[in-house]
Amino acid sequence: MANTDSLRVRVFSLNCWGIRYVSKHTPQRYDMIGELLSKEEYDIVLLQEVWSEKDYLSLKKKLAFCHPHSHHFKSGVIGSGLAIFSKHRIHDTFLYRYSLNGYPYMVQHGDWFGGKAVGMAVLKLGGLTANVYVTHLHAEYSRDKDSYLPHRVVQAWELQQFVRHTSAAADVVILGGDLNMHPQDLGSRLLMSYTGLRDSYLESAEFDGCEDGMTLIADNPFIGKGSMGPLEKGIRIDYILFKGSSERDVHCDFMSTTKGSAPDHPFPYSDHEALTAALRVETRQRPSKNQDSAGGKTAELVDIVTEARTEVKVGLHCAERMRYTAARTGAMGLALLFLELAIAAVPWLALGAAQPFPRTSFYLLAALCVAILFTTALLYVFYSAELKSLQGAEDQMRLAVGSLQEELRGFPVAQPHGAQRGALGPEE
Amino acid sequence: MANTDSLRVRVFSLNCWGIRYVSKHTPQRYDMIGELLSKEEYDIVLLQEVWSEKDYLSLKKKLAFCHPHSHHFKSGVIGSGLAIFSKHRIHDTFLYRYSLNGYPYMVQHGDWFGGKAVGMAVLKLGGLTANVYVTHLHAEYSRDKDSYLPHRVVQAWELQQFVRHTSAAADVVILGGDLNMHPQDLGSRLLMSYTGLRDSYLESAEFDGCEDGMTLIADNPFIGKGSMGPLEKGIRIDYILFKGSSERDVHCDFMSTTKGSAPDHPFPYSDHEALTAALRVETRQRPSKNQDSAGGKTAELVDIVTEARTEVKVGLHCAERMRYTAARTGAMGLALLFLELAIAAVPWLALGAAQPFPRTSFYLLAALCVAILFTTALLYVFYSAELKSLQGAEDQMRLAVGSLQEELRGFPVAQPHGAQRGALGPEE
Repeated sequence: MANTDSLRVRVFSLNCWGIRYVSKHTPQRYDMIGELLSKEEYDIVLLQEVWSEKDYLSLKKKLAFCHPHSHHFKSGVIGSGLAIFSKHRIHDTFLYRYSLNGYPYMVQHGDWFGGKAVGMAVLKLGGLTANVYVTHLHAEYSRDKDSYLPHRVVQAWELQQFVRHTSAAADVVILGGDLNMHPQDLGSRLLMSYTGLRDSYLESAEFDGCEDGMTLIADNPFIGKGSMGPLEKGIRIDYILFKGSSERDVHCDFMSTTKGSAPDHPFPYSDHEALTAALRVETRQRPSKNQDSAGGKTAELVDIVTEARTEVKVGLHCAERMRYTAARTGAMGLALLFLELAIAAVPWLALGAAQPFPRTSFYLLAALCVAILFTTALLYVFYSAELKSLQGAEDQMRLAVGSLQEELRGFPVAQPHGAQRGALGPEE
Repeated sequence: MANTDSLRVRVFSLNCWGIRYVSKHTPQRYDMIGELLSKEEYDIVLLQEVWSEKDYLSLKKKLAFCHPHSHHFKSGVIGSGLAIFSKHRIHDTFLYRYSLNGYPYMVQHGDWFGGKAVGMAVLKLGGLTANVYVTHLHAEYSRDKDSYLPHRVVQAWELQQFVRHTSAAADVVILGGDLNMHPQDLGSRLLMSYTGLRDSYLESAEFDGCEDGMTLIADNPFIGKGSMGPLEKGIRIDYILFKGSSERDVHCDFMSTTKGSAPDHPFPYSDHEALTAALRVETRQRPSKNQDSAGGKTAELVDIVTEARTEVKVGLHCAERMRYTAARTGAMGLALLFLELAIAAVPWLALGAAQPFPRTSFYLLAALCVAILFTTALLYVFYSAELKSLQGAEDQMRLAVGSLQEELRGFPVAQPHGAQRGALGPEE
């Protein structure tokens, strides 16, 4: 189709920490980010936590000369915070909103309001079709006691489904973003194994950046001292992932991260480090063949999906317990309200009828009962929806394991859909 | 890959109207549906409004011998109501929840609680990959004054995106369900034109069923007389759609609907009519070429997407007005509360200090203020999310129109992604 014997693509990814009036030095940092991007002229820029439409629009204006094409993905109450800037025309976009994303009453964590999602943009790079994904998964607020783990595992599950099912026509697949997962976390393994995406940090021929490729480091002045907990120096939770197709091979020649500071500026670009990857797309000399290892990979995948299922089941138990508690509290509120009404309606039930009726207490208590009823009803509805999503993911995982196991047993028709250009199956 | 010179697939679709304790004769009707499916042994059965997990499980048990593979898609508070039963193994599933789906306070309509979505199942049919979709869009409660139209248009937009982006690897694409749209409605045109899906009613060589292929008919005893409004006899809102790929061609040999009654039973299977289509998949003799008409189709698509954009903008205005009203009502509630507190706290503000303080009225009014504040805050959050989704769809449509127009101008790199196996572009 086009002359693409060796196509070079430079990709940038950064969690911008752009909460207006809350994040520190937001306008200055956006200026710095705009400056950097204008100077470097990356092919594709993937940003997360661009919460404000105004900030997106001012970046868009500033980058119009080098990145004429851009898209801000909208979801949730505040937005998804996801944005893409591109040198190349964006032909199509699509947004998938994760079904689970924390709890609305955890206002201090705010994830629910952000409407976490994965955005996709379809670009043409020198005649090749590139599917570019940008995402941001639910934050991990405590590594030891991570109550959001089932939600994040379901997000990783949906992310791999989305990438796998939408990328069949792509020659190049690029995913960048803040996954909020360490490289060995269940969700990371699930994503990489199922989609066949490769980690540019691990694959890069050359690397320049923080030790161990860390992207959230204790030395960053925006990070509270001691907040890293036992992981003293930092963690690697931001990624640029990539893969080719049966006809195109992708290599990572160079990868870098910022190191907790920005040249000539008093503070860094964000609380996360920025990532850049220089990718090279080449025509495969012969269609890729990994038939030998396919069985091993499928077996590994069965284990990972089974592990994910277990985690989702833990989440199911938890959500069921929460829903039960909401229902019980609601029932108690209702009982109290009836008791009150009975006391008011049937005078002889009131103790010491001679005493004046305690109106103030009566109304306050009734208001409390109504508030309890209303709140627990809302919570019940919310937990019911959470249960449905968890059950749905669990069902899908069970079905996927069944299909993978059949493939392992070597049934003739057992090559699953996603494997066609993915990591699993032999290419035709 | 396999010997599939002529593969036959029989597809069934029915909106089961399975609201326990509300829909009429639900258990008996499920028995009838199970009986019919056991007898007919369709390859693929697509059901909507299977709201109860219990009903799904009892159907699953009953159909285990003829349809050993099945999946119930879960979403929302109650569920998506979508189910698929298949003779052939389901290798993979994926669910896309529509971003807009009515209003939670329209409890009598209930759509919001159902969590409308499109479910996908990947099957192997004699060595071919079939992507099967089942969906149910937001109901239309009034044709003249359809306040849900922008929501349904966005659902149709997301549905076409989902089908287009996930079906590139499929040899056969089948979509069945209750679209709640007439054939000439904006959403139907958007879906068909963008995806290239074909309507089995229009394409079928032979048809047996209700006049004009109607699937919601006035003669159905479950439908309230007069509820059809000016459309006296009925409407066609349920569909079985299909398409092939560049290598496979799909034909519809026979299509039928039930006719408002079930043989040997006192009442029909549902308030909707059931659809069946006999499809035939053949190997294309030469890759399909529709280069001549591609330009015309793209121009038509630009018009349709522009029309959809206008409709979404109407929805945006409406949502903005609703959010403004919520904010204003909330502000009034807050002002009233402050006034009350001031009267209570500053005795000399109270008129006639000699009179006793009107406690009862005071508490009732305060409770009312708090209730108003709470409700309007919830509504404000809800409308903000609605606005985000509408803006997001509008952005995507604008971008798509830009890309399509570039294609029309004949720029060299202008073949959009979805066109690769879709209706628009020339096949390679």
